[in-house]
Amino acid sequence: MIETIRVELGNRSYPIHIGSGTLAGGDLFLAPLEPTEVLILTNETIAPLYLAQIRANFTKKSCHNLILPDGEAHKNLETLEHILTFMLERGFKRGALLVALGGGVIGDLGGFAASCYQRGISYIQVPTTLLAQVDSSVGGKTAVNHRLGKNMIGAFHQPSAVITDTKTLTTLPDRELRAGIAEIIKYGLIRDFPLFEWLESNIDNLLGRDSYTLKTAISLSCKNKAEVVASDEKEENIRATLNFGHTFGHAIETALGYGTWLHGEAVALGMCMATRLSYAIGSLTMEEVVRVESLLRRADLPIVPPEGLSEDALLTVMKSDKKNVDDRIRLVLLESLGSARVTTDYPHEKLADAIKNGSVS
Amino acid sequence: MIETIRVELGNRSYPIHIGSGTLAGGDLFLAPLEPTEVLILTNETIAPLYLAQIRANFTKKSCHNLILPDGEAHKNLETLEHILTFMLERGFKRGALLVALGGGVIGDLGGFAASCYQRGISYIQVPTTLLAQVDSSVGGKTAVNHRLGKNMIGAFHQPSAVITDTKTLTTLPDRELRAGIAEIIKYGLIRDFPLFEWLESNIDNLLGRDSYTLKTAISLSCKNKAEVVASDEKEENIRATLNFGHTFGHAIETALGYGTWLHGEAVALGMCMATRLSYAIGSLTMEEVVRVESLLRRADLPIVPPEGLSEDALLTVMKSDKKNVDDRIRLVLLESLGSARVTTDYPHEKLADAIKNGSVS
Repeated sequence: MIETIRVELGNRSYPIHIGSGTLAGGDLFLAPLEPTEVLILTNETIAPLYLAQIRANFTKKSCHNLILPDGEAHKNLETLEHILTFMLERGFKRGALLVALGGGVIGDLGGFAASCYQRGISYIQVPTTLLAQVDSSVGGKTAVNHRLGKNMIGAFHQPSAVITDTKTLTTLPDRELRAGIAEIIKYGLIRDFPLFEWLESNIDNLLGRDSYTLKTAISLSCKNKAEVVASDEKEENIRATLNFGHTFGHAIETALGYGTWLHGEAVALGMCMATRLSYAIGSLTMEEVVRVESLLRRADLPIVPPEGLSEDALLTVMKSDKKNVDDRIRLVLLESLGSARVTTDYPHEKLADAIKNGSVS
Repeated sequence: MIETIRVELGNRSYPIHIGSGTLAGGDLFLAPLEPTEVLILTNETIAPLYLAQIRANFTKKSCHNLILPDGEAHKNLETLEHILTFMLERGFKRGALLVALGGGVIGDLGGFAASCYQRGISYIQVPTTLLAQVDSSVGGKTAVNHRLGKNMIGAFHQPSAVITDTKTLTTLPDRELRAGIAEIIKYGLIRDFPLFEWLESNIDNLLGRDSYTLKTAISLSCKNKAEVVASDEKEENIRATLNFGHTFGHAIETALGYGTWLHGEAVALGMCMATRLSYAIGSLTMEEVVRVESLLRRADLPIVPPEGLSEDALLTVMKSDKKNVDDRIRLVLLESLGSARVTTDYPHEKLADAIKNGSVS
């Protein structure tokens, strides 16, 4: 059975379809669009697994595919230009459709290409990693990296649909599955305490890739993301709480060198740091901090900084975050388990402590 | 006296300020924005003339300027990246403001850079050519060129304000002034017959750069553009009528090689071709065609194809226009003087005739 969640954004509203076998969805891909041309954008890892299945939905259309090398290193302006040139050379018109089949890199690149090709064409997200399914495929944030920062060049461009097939998770490496779980835990922590409790009861089934548990986790996550995006599309206020753990996380990724840790792993450790800081300023009890760490640990996600990660290096990167409004580092902190707020109001030395200290439990 | 026209687009509404001496406007530039940093983007021709004046408005801000070489050849992804890197290197945040000081190339480049820098920052258009003042600075169309087509990569990103100083027209070359007049005549033809008649009476004062006449022409043009944009921001229907003469015009520019003719000159000849086709299918009388040609001729704008411009070359380019929905060439034709519609419904041989034939008068 396919579950459908709507992202309510007026004339930019769209459905998120979640189910097993949706890749062969046919109508899901075409209705209500009637594309003049179709580009399926994917990468070398995903193409042999799922490209043929997707193409089968577009037999009656002029359908092309472009297979990129795998990896974050290719999420840049050069690859963007390559995609745009590919479409121009094949005479793609404004009525064209781009289908982004892959993880966060393909989704971000494909979405940005769709946003600026002839000032905007339609695109569909077909996320194949858990992280993309619960987070990056929903909400219209698209971007490429610049050598001076991640996601520094991009656009808000909502997809026409998100189509998630839980079957694609059967081929996902374990480490990437866990990285996706970090983002699910995030929704529990910042706005959905029942989801947090549900995860405490179901984490083992989730790690065991039980199909029903996966679908439930994805749909509960998408519901949270859809609500937040609907109320603050351009991240002017509440949407910023979705960055819980991310300011720390991006700094960890930068300090370690991209590719060393997965995004979700860095976010997990970042959430621990933010949780410890929330405790240090009196918003959480020690028992609550232990609960958070314990759930992350059960998902085999990192909760202590790796050897040699320098506190100063982290703080330097965090100060240059694009979300800062002045010289203070803007952070998302917990008010309780299931509630978060964006703030710059905390003592700086407690931030340094929260970064330095290891696990409390 | 400064005249202000509002472009009504909900929370993306903005003012167009038109007057003499507005460059020294101070408050016009800052209120209601409080930018964290300011980038003034301009070119080598404009910088010595007006950069100091603009900078004087931002003495209390962290203000940088970036001076590009002049010309359409630089409106590409490479220059875009250069602008984005410039801002990243100087730590520009999401609260930054870009001021695009120049003609259409600077406006299109600056607007697109603002649209994708950290997924969108504010920008102000300060158009210094008549063409930019009456057309390209208003409406949020931003883009760069690709070797396979003009404006193929871009975004809809509305400015926070348009500030037009009629004094900047004193340094504008004659040929560029006339090219701008072509776009003013366009508004008269497609939706504002009183403006067309006003132009018939005032064309000599306009060419003589009478300050009051210029201001009136700019403000009547902006009023038309603002109304069209307000009712169809993303060019889903009525905004397409603004392309009157442009499908022909772009083809003429491409066929002659960019830079041979100015955009406004190509549009003038394109409007003649569209007018002749409108006559050929019975929408206009011969007297009306003569009136159109006569006004364009008084503005010293081209109304006959140059030697050696091949009809086939033009048709080939027109067929690849991004506005086409199928294999038929979509054109804007006149229903009467002051009224236009988008159509593919005309006999193909009459299109060929309209391109081939010279002036009727």
